[in-house]
Amino acid sequence: MAENMAENTAPRRLDRRRERTRNALVYAAQRLLAERRTEVAIQEITDLADVGVGSFYNHFDSKEALFRTAAEEALEWWGTLMDRLTADLDDPAVAFAQSLRLTGRLHRRHPRLSRVLLSVGPELARSERGLAPRAHRDIRAAATAGRFRVDDPDLALAMTAGAVLALGALVHAQPDRDDASSADQVALGLLRQFGVPEAEALRICSLELPDLARLDPIDGPYG
Amino acid sequence: MAENMAENTAPRRLDRRRERTRNALVYAAQRLLAERRTEVAIQEITDLADVGVGSFYNHFDSKEALFRTAAEEALEWWGTLMDRLTADLDDPAVAFAQSLRLTGRLHRRHPRLSRVLLSVGPELARSERGLAPRAHRDIRAAATAGRFRVDDPDLALAMTAGAVLALGALVHAQPDRDDASSADQVALGLLRQFGVPEAEALRICSLELPDLARLDPIDGPYG
Repeated sequence: MAENMAENTAPRRLDRRRERTRNALVYAAQRLLAERRTEVAIQEITDLADVGVGSFYNHFDSKEALFRTAAEEALEWWGTLMDRLTADLDDPAVAFAQSLRLTGRLHRRHPRLSRVLLSVGPELARSERGLAPRAHRDIRAAATAGRFRVDDPDLALAMTAGAVLALGALVHAQPDRDDASSADQVALGLLRQFGVPEAEALRICSLELPDLARLDPIDGPYG
Repeated sequence: MAENMAENTAPRRLDRRRERTRNALVYAAQRLLAERRTEVAIQEITDLADVGVGSFYNHFDSKEALFRTAAEEALEWWGTLMDRLTADLDDPAVAFAQSLRLTGRLHRRHPRLSRVLLSVGPELARSERGLAPRAHRDIRAAATAGRFRVDDPDLALAMTAGAVLALGALVHAQPDRDDASSADQVALGLLRQFGVPEAEALRICSLELPDLARLDPIDGPYG
């Protein structure tokens, strides 16, 4: 019986250790991405992750694969949170604006996650996980519902990504800037750009936001 | 007399050679920036420029200084061209839109210059030469003249830079995309965002543009 238990738990313990090693590599890569230090040797990454250099290739084929995964998982974590916070909104224009307003508040709240996002650059608009597919979905739904006058959702998504990145860079460059009101201005600007009438755009951008402070410390590694 | 001539021309010949070396370094750096290959040894840069490795420090203190100069001069060349092409426009809203529409057409016409611009990233909005100071000037002038409803010119400039960068990335990612109509859409979107009434924004974005093809081959190293 003791032997049976050992047989059952040992693989699980191994799996957990394997997962811990993988996650340590991903967090180390996120830190390097945030610091724009991706031109490092694999040994430097494993040292930072405090794992054996030999374990790297058990998990990733290359440095590029690790950095790609690291960026995707960071964006996916935030995207999932945005989905949860906007799940009960029927109006895609409102869901789009709420996500934007919350994402604009991310840069001061989670500087590392923000810098990972900024490191992705305009390719952000073409990433298959995280914010881009969600924004694309909201833009198309809002266009179909007649809420946005958008003929070219790819271009609208690119403009959204450009605005998110430019706001993040500005918030970091100007430490005294009010991130919340700037984020709301950016959301308002995009709604105007997408043809939402002024009064309606103003209403949408002054709706109450979910309380991030109450939510996110329990939700991931970026608290 | 022959000696006097030699005295007069030798230094000038030396100056010209010095300038040729410097420019060769700058063009090599622009090529590397465009290819996102800035993590290279100085020797690789001087090889690419076909100049002696020892000449590097006669011109630049560091690799970073060279890359900064290379990006600035590329942006300044384009900015000067934009200034010339919009010099006779009295309306800053029109000057702003014309520059944007022309800059959106730059990505296919001058792919290397485009990629240098994209390599600068959102810092583009804070560069002291090139497009940013000119766009900032147009935005403030348009706000003062009541053409733009903009309270926060820094944020408006950041949104402009974000739109320019995002459009460039999209145009490169989608080779079949019509760069001209996309650029005009982006200009229209920013005018809407800055509160220009719809009919007026549409009028501005369908004004005739100067013919770049007739102009730029004689104007710089990017033709």
